Amino acid sequence: MTDNTPLLFRTRKPVVINPTPSYSKVYDPTMSNPIKEFMDVFPVIAEELLAHLRSLNIPQNAIEWFDRSMRYNVLGGKMNRGLTVAETLRILKRGEPLSEEEIFKANLLGWCIEWLQAFFLVSDDIMDDSKTRRGQPCWFRVEGVGNIAINDAFILESAIYFFLKKHFRKDSYYVDLIELFHETTYQTELGQLLDLITAPEDNVDLNKFSIEKHSFIVIYKTAYYSFYLPVALAMHMAGVKDEAAFKQAEAILLPLGEYFQVQDDYLDCYGNPETIGKIGTDIEDNKCSWLINQALDIASAEQRKILDENYGKRNEANVKAVKEVYVELGIEGRFKAYEEESYVRINALIEKVDHPLLSQDVFTSFMKRIYKRTK
Amino acid sequence: MTDNTPLLFRTRKPVVINPTPSYSKVYDPTMSNPIKEFMDVFPVIAEELLAHLRSLNIPQNAIEWFDRSMRYNVLGGKMNRGLTVAETLRILKRGEPLSEEEIFKANLLGWCIEWLQAFFLVSDDIMDDSKTRRGQPCWFRVEGVGNIAINDAFILESAIYFFLKKHFRKDSYYVDLIELFHETTYQTELGQLLDLITAPEDNVDLNKFSIEKHSFIVIYKTAYYSFYLPVALAMHMAGVKDEAAFKQAEAILLPLGEYFQVQDDYLDCYGNPETIGKIGTDIEDNKCSWLINQALDIASAEQRKILDENYGKRNEANVKAVKEVYVELGIEGRFKAYEEESYVRINALIEKVDHPLLSQDVFTSFMKRIYKRTK
Repeated sequence: MTDNTPLLFRTRKPVVINPTPSYSKVYDPTMSNPIKEFMDVFPVIAEELLAHLRSLNIPQNAIEWFDRSMRYNVLGGKMNRGLTVAETLRILKRGEPLSEEEIFKANLLGWCIEWLQAFFLVSDDIMDDSKTRRGQPCWFRVEGVGNIAINDAFILESAIYFFLKKHFRKDSYYVDLIELFHETTYQTELGQLLDLITAPEDNVDLNKFSIEKHSFIVIYKTAYYSFYLPVALAMHMAGVKDEAAFKQAEAILLPLGEYFQVQDDYLDCYGNPETIGKIGTDIEDNKCSWLINQALDIASAEQRKILDENYGKRNEANVKAVKEVYVELGIEGRFKAYEEESYVRINALIEKVDHPLLSQDVFTSFMKRIYKRTK
Repeated sequence: MTDNTPLLFRTRKPVVINPTPSYSKVYDPTMSNPIKEFMDVFPVIAEELLAHLRSLNIPQNAIEWFDRSMRYNVLGGKMNRGLTVAETLRILKRGEPLSEEEIFKANLLGWCIEWLQAFFLVSDDIMDDSKTRRGQPCWFRVEGVGNIAINDAFILESAIYFFLKKHFRKDSYYVDLIELFHETTYQTELGQLLDLITAPEDNVDLNKFSIEKHSFIVIYKTAYYSFYLPVALAMHMAGVKDEAAFKQAEAILLPLGEYFQVQDDYLDCYGNPETIGKIGTDIEDNKCSWLINQALDIASAEQRKILDENYGKRNEANVKAVKEVYVELGIEGRFKAYEEESYVRINALIEKVDHPLLSQDVFTSFMKRIYKRTK
């Protein structure tokens, strides 16, 4: 029996990987089958990269640096995106068992998403001047790394196309995979661009915010690579060629991703820090969050003045003033209404999925995990 | 008659493009035909990118940022690499006139190299903490840009694959073009990695240097994308499919690129600043230059001590001490001998070029311009 339970957002043991993760530290023999199968691919493909470097006669110190950067930055995440490829492929094949080769290749594509994410995170952390990531110092903050991390990020991106060429070159959908990674990367970069110029930490200007910009940022910066990409990769592996099927999937996964990110914004302010595992700082960080955009949309001139004077400042009193305006405006209630509306709206989209090569289960499994999540 | 004179290293009017280059500033009606044809492609493909952004409904401030970054970073260079694609294609077609479509597409590929170079330069300048580039402040030093430049660099890279998809998707060599750009990018990143960890400016350690590392850095960081890439792109357009032809070209262009970079290292120390247009600072900057590696190879224990104590320091007296050791060791003479040896060795390689789809002229035109260059 194959396990069709959705893995996305499934709770797993937190993995401690300080200071440099190694495969032995993230591998746990009690893992469920799909997770074990996914993890088993990592050492194989990491070795492929290293063997290629050795074949180039690149000096040993560079190989060691490369290896360390890869383990430090690719491992240690929740791996939700990576796991979703094989999971979706299983649903698309309607329970028919995957061959060993299919399992390997689907998980390899999952790892490509994890490599892509590592490329984004290493560079985002530099741009956001972040302190920690996944419970360890950001890579650029590691002794001796600094801005070399920028080039390390590039190398992480390049690995994706090394893997695709090595394992998919003979497949009819090889070009589609490459183009999908290119386009998703570009979309994420465009979302990041708009986010960076809309909400710079050192220059607060709420006039730059808008509900439309928030929506663009969220869909481009997060939804494409986190929601659409893993499903689209699985569809290519399942032999889907019809553009209409991809459009149907996208039409659900982007709103789903947007809804997920709005929840994130909500939980940052209203979630239980013990449950979500961090203390939210979106207000202090001048984030272009769903909450502030809702507030700006309905604030009176007086309330707007308070938001202008207090948003994006590190002081507790400033944060409190912003939160008080949120209470006055009933922002929490607006979120609850948005949550219900999204649930109904997206479920209606899912119910209309009728492409013979798709399955509504792909999407309902996402929705089940997301709806009213508290972490 | 087509003009087969090699454009690489041809002297052109210096182009002043401060503060933000615009197409009208880099376009000069007295340009030679091949340069004019090349320049004519820029506004067409820049508009393709912008039109695509507009179709995504990305907010106007992001479109304006994108446009400014593109013009600031892609324009204003010598464009040698970009011009070489169409030039090589003309040689490969043995004087047969190119169609308008071929001219456009070859020059588009040339611009893809210029976009790739912009991606490298924007990020290299951050990593090297450089001050100026092409006579204007480095992009990350422009007011309000800062580390957003990292994401701008990514976007410059993404544009390459947007262009390739738009204009080459139906060509039999589309995948080859993509793979060539991927591989060249990866090679350049690996060269940059070794350079960054071998010669960090803040931690001078000559033990890390070696002639072998210098050679790897130069070939990977410069020769692949500056010498092999433009020729290989033209070969794909000319319909070359035989891997052996690419191997023959590579076997000449990599040594040529290495020789060119060694000349660069030589001119940094011994060139006339007025002729080369800058005052060399490789010694101060702890660069893993050909000169220091030659010196390390033959220095006595005493001379080695002087190099250890003085290399990579900003003081005039330190630089002088290093240069004195270079004189004692006859490094300049060693370069002259290397130059002669390279000339003979690479010409012998060129003479052996016998692949029916190649032409020795592709390579002799490079060599003619490079040999004994003083700038």
